[in-house]
Amino acid sequence: MNAISLLFKPRSVAIIGASGDASKTAGRPIAYLRKHGYTGDIYPVNPRVDTIDGLRCYPDIASLPAAPDVAMVCVGAERAIGAVRELAAKGCAAAIVLASGFGETGEAGLRRQQELVAAAGGMRLLGPNTIGLVNLTDDIPLSASGALEMDRFPAGAVGLVSQSGGILGALLSRAAARGIGMSKLVSTSNEVDLELADFIDYLVDDEATRVIALYVETVRNPDKFRAACLRAAHAGKPVVAFKIGRSEAGARAAVSHTGAMAGADRMYDALFKEVGVIRAQTFADFLDIPAALTNGRVLRGKRVAILTSTGGAGTLISDALGVTGFDAPAPDEATAARLRALQTGEEAALDRNPIDVTLAGLKPDLLRGAINALLDSPSYDALVIIIGSSALAMPELMAGAIQDCLANSDKPILAYVSPHAPELMALFNQRGVPAYAAPESCAAALGAMLQVARVPAVPASVAAAAPVAIDDFPTGSLDEAQAKALFARFGVPSVREQIVTNAAAAQTAAAAFGDKVVLKILSSEITHKSDVGGVAVAVPVAQVGARLAQMIEDVRARAGVTPTRFLVQEMVSGGAEFILGVHRDALGTAVLLGMGGVMAELFKDTTMRLVPASGSLTRADALEMARELTTWPLLDGFRGRPKADVEALVDAIVAFSRMAAQLGERLVEAEINPVFVLEAGRGVRAADGVLVLGA
Amino acid sequence: MNAISLLFKPRSVAIIGASGDASKTAGRPIAYLRKHGYTGDIYPVNPRVDTIDGLRCYPDIASLPAAPDVAMVCVGAERAIGAVRELAAKGCAAAIVLASGFGETGEAGLRRQQELVAAAGGMRLLGPNTIGLVNLTDDIPLSASGALEMDRFPAGAVGLVSQSGGILGALLSRAAARGIGMSKLVSTSNEVDLELADFIDYLVDDEATRVIALYVETVRNPDKFRAACLRAAHAGKPVVAFKIGRSEAGARAAVSHTGAMAGADRMYDALFKEVGVIRAQTFADFLDIPAALTNGRVLRGKRVAILTSTGGAGTLISDALGVTGFDAPAPDEATAARLRALQTGEEAALDRNPIDVTLAGLKPDLLRGAINALLDSPSYDALVIIIGSSALAMPELMAGAIQDCLANSDKPILAYVSPHAPELMALFNQRGVPAYAAPESCAAALGAMLQVARVPAVPASVAAAAPVAIDDFPTGSLDEAQAKALFARFGVPSVREQIVTNAAAAQTAAAAFGDKVVLKILSSEITHKSDVGGVAVAVPVAQVGARLAQMIEDVRARAGVTPTRFLVQEMVSGGAEFILGVHRDALGTAVLLGMGGVMAELFKDTTMRLVPASGSLTRADALEMARELTTWPLLDGFRGRPKADVEALVDAIVAFSRMAAQLGERLVEAEINPVFVLEAGRGVRAADGVLVLGA
Repeated sequence: MNAISLLFKPRSVAIIGASGDASKTAGRPIAYLRKHGYTGDIYPVNPRVDTIDGLRCYPDIASLPAAPDVAMVCVGAERAIGAVRELAAKGCAAAIVLASGFGETGEAGLRRQQELVAAAGGMRLLGPNTIGLVNLTDDIPLSASGALEMDRFPAGAVGLVSQSGGILGALLSRAAARGIGMSKLVSTSNEVDLELADFIDYLVDDEATRVIALYVETVRNPDKFRAACLRAAHAGKPVVAFKIGRSEAGARAAVSHTGAMAGADRMYDALFKEVGVIRAQTFADFLDIPAALTNGRVLRGKRVAILTSTGGAGTLISDALGVTGFDAPAPDEATAARLRALQTGEEAALDRNPIDVTLAGLKPDLLRGAINALLDSPSYDALVIIIGSSALAMPELMAGAIQDCLANSDKPILAYVSPHAPELMALFNQRGVPAYAAPESCAAALGAMLQVARVPAVPASVAAAAPVAIDDFPTGSLDEAQAKALFARFGVPSVREQIVTNAAAAQTAAAAFGDKVVLKILSSEITHKSDVGGVAVAVPVAQVGARLAQMIEDVRARAGVTPTRFLVQEMVSGGAEFILGVHRDALGTAVLLGMGGVMAELFKDTTMRLVPASGSLTRADALEMARELTTWPLLDGFRGRPKADVEALVDAIVAFSRMAAQLGERLVEAEINPVFVLEAGRGVRAADGVLVLGA
Repeated sequence: MNAISLLFKPRSVAIIGASGDASKTAGRPIAYLRKHGYTGDIYPVNPRVDTIDGLRCYPDIASLPAAPDVAMVCVGAERAIGAVRELAAKGCAAAIVLASGFGETGEAGLRRQQELVAAAGGMRLLGPNTIGLVNLTDDIPLSASGALEMDRFPAGAVGLVSQSGGILGALLSRAAARGIGMSKLVSTSNEVDLELADFIDYLVDDEATRVIALYVETVRNPDKFRAACLRAAHAGKPVVAFKIGRSEAGARAAVSHTGAMAGADRMYDALFKEVGVIRAQTFADFLDIPAALTNGRVLRGKRVAILTSTGGAGTLISDALGVTGFDAPAPDEATAARLRALQTGEEAALDRNPIDVTLAGLKPDLLRGAINALLDSPSYDALVIIIGSSALAMPELMAGAIQDCLANSDKPILAYVSPHAPELMALFNQRGVPAYAAPESCAAALGAMLQVARVPAVPASVAAAAPVAIDDFPTGSLDEAQAKALFARFGVPSVREQIVTNAAAAQTAAAAFGDKVVLKILSSEITHKSDVGGVAVAVPVAQVGARLAQMIEDVRARAGVTPTRFLVQEMVSGGAEFILGVHRDALGTAVLLGMGGVMAELFKDTTMRLVPASGSLTRADALEMARELTTWPLLDGFRGRPKADVEALVDAIVAFSRMAAQLGERLVEAEINPVFVLEAGRGVRAADGVLVLGA
């Protein structure tokens, strides 16, 4: 067994700094191990007492009768370092360090953390600042979480990796109350050694785990994370993540507009999307979705039958489903006939959905018949059963009736419990019917099931193109002409243009570009040219020289420098304006595509994709990006417009991503704004560009 | 006492069709009255038994010893009509009709419903198809809701009016489990007599009720609803509504773009906004928000202190608050110093928010000191206290410590309970500290508190302007020139234009309008002129005649008719394009303002206001509408643009609303699309318009 396997299933556990007082943090691990029935050896270590709860207590680590598989280190930060060193020397496989006061507290803590890592040597570390882990499959809690005060936890199929110990405890107790079975829970916290991806990998291989839930504060190692999530996807184990930090999106200073619009949180969206991780939008979803995914039932479409004995809740559910894009169509005639045949008393209206069986009274036999009719119906992809207060009188019968039907179909069946009935919710969850108290939870669960159906592809192996030679470009902030020339070398064409230094040359150059031209200053220092009067559009050719003279005056007055170089560019008429940019942070490099112009800033109509470390985005990625924009119809013939050259835009996105991949760490900033997408067959043109290259 | 007061507090209740079997619906009312301690007289009516639960049973209504204040009619639909007739004859004040099978089932049911109303005469009716009502203030349940099986309900300050009986039961049991006290609950269902507004009015006057919660399927009488909600607002009683039907928004066929973008559900948004009703966005919010509003504490800003003993949950809360626009600033130095002085052991980092008091351990005294320091701080408007699992061991102490601080400040204090701890949640709610298990609930509760701070103004008494004379306009579909002339008469200026019938006249007309003009066909039949080639923009004056000839050919080819009349219009250069339209449905007439052009359709950047039946929108309403648009910055000098003539836009909105009010039922369709808003001082210009006038 490797160290992680030993962590979850140790044959022996040493508790360093164990206390006999179970109300103290250091007293909890042994109390919980015994309470929940751990059968391996427990070695308390504490020089001040002889026994704890009847267990022989050892004065120090050196005195232990054998190297423990795992040790829980319950002493303070400073003493933990020495303990870890001794445990490593003793031959312990892995240590769980509970103490805080390390990297999370600042400089001094960070140094202490480095000492801790050094002390561990080859021994694996969980933490520090962790609440530990809980293996519910085998009843082994190695944790000080107060949630373990509860007596019983249903074992099940949801594995949790949490970067917060408090959240682990909250989910452990909340899941248990709901009857949602979990397999393993681990709090990774400071992650000086074992981290998110290590445990995802472990859970992919863990037989008891069918769904992996991640509480994420930060992904420290994106490549490892990516690989682990893809393994999970291809093993058919959905990964559901709740990530905090959404509201910091706008906080970081932005170099360019692109940066401003692509907050770091959106990088996580891009990363999750890439590897098929389902992002929980609310904290409730973070339990609701995994609970729905454990039974492996398959949602093939958006048509949901709603079976109810209480009209109000039926409408409530159909409304919540409708808001998220699901349909609740009326039953087909054959199904309606089957439903009608079940009714014995006053006839209910069975030609509508929600299917209301109030009038015939709610009897388990009737319920069974109605469920089977709806599951058999070709009109439905899933079934939501609404449990009213009448079910409170016969919970077992109701749950049993639904459970009986599970084997007849692999379509998802969910229960919405209308009155307050926690025991009923737990009973349903335990019987394999995900049960919810919020209509929005039903919608979120079904939405996640649709996402599961789309397993991400194996990372596309784009043929590694030969690197583009760019040694002739300078480093630092390139001027607009240089930037566009470099973009063009990768395959993003620019507008026609010419560099000039005086009015006469401008006049001559302009004559080649039609009736009207664009005139701009050319400078690698001034990035916001318009703000200083350095851009003129639609300048009639005859006036270009005069306009240039005027521009010199304007820029001198506003920026305090005299421009000496200018660009004369062709005017692009028609076409749609877009932005192509990059955003780089700890998660990697992403290409950003957005609508251009002021609208882009107001509506934030942008989308992002992470660029593989080597290679580029695929054409399929690029097309999907364009289609994700709210303004996609503008490219696609909306309201009689000509279709735009989407092929050329796709080429440009791929080319730009290839540039980003090749430049790698050298890429400080890159943006094409705007790039004009012309009519089909006419291509795209970069009309302005920014590029800052590191050494 | 009036009939509604008697309904909630009857001295005597007759149960028509009472059953001795408490498991049957007809057996429940008596069982629940006795279970929950009703002290008035109960008259069971049932010819087949002599006594029910020791109460004398009467064979029929005529035999009752006296006219009951209230009767619950528990017989089927057909027999209910006769019972209601007899109750009215006996002198009963109000009857609650439980039976279904009336207006909700179709034609036959509707006829039955009309008979029921006729039978009641002057007696007031609740229902039919209602589950009844519950008065928790006085322990009087007049309901068959299975939720009343619960033994105890905390009485409190939330009054509920629900158009669904099942939802009443769900909320009754859910609130009780959460420790949220309610005052009165009533299910109005079919509303053949007493309806939503009647009960809002009652609850405004009910001393026990401080917050009014409405579960709305439809508002049958908007004027009465509006008046009742405004009474509530001015009595300082917040109204919180959950309204279903959100997903039907896009379902109805649309005559014009305006109609398409303004689904009926948005009319409810407009109505709620107008009268200060807070709309709950999720079903959970529908309890979470009222629970927060009952204690009347005042939120004056968006700065929230988060006090926690468990780091993970603190971050979770600050993230959820941040997403909804709240700030969690670090403590000011004086407050940090007070916090630091409380710490006795290892020093925690108290210069940040969430304020984490983990290290010093969580003791009630420390908690009290920290809460008071944060409440006193000028840096915070509210406090969220995070309750970790350590509190589970001493719930009373924790709740007591927080409760002690309530009197020291009127700032809101909320609790977020991280582990599963329903008893703790109930305890906190009962002690006046709204407690939540979802981070999003804290955000929703605080958001609602901000809304409460904005009481709607008394409906503005816009000086009733003299009606505009429009008798010279035809009825039916007006052509563009007529429509704009009518709009102009109300005060929305148009572009300059001239009607012509041939190329020569067009040429002459165009010369007066500058270098380039717009040329259009003029027709009251063809509403989508561009689709048939009937619009040409930026036509050089010299080419107008030729262009007109071409247009005749194009329209003939595409529409099969030969146009004979044309409009020559001045080209408006610059300015921002907007749409002004109306949407009319059962709730009233609303003015819609939106950005114009294709972007309007893609981003749906529109806003609506209901127009008062007489009068118009105020200038303040109109300005608020403009400011609500995502594209508002385009009018307000965004990115160096010139400021637009917002005053003129406001004038145009007010004028348009005045037109809508005056036309009233005659208004079938009205839209100005686009209206150009020019630079400040240059006004607005209607450049196209549609108007359909009924007789």
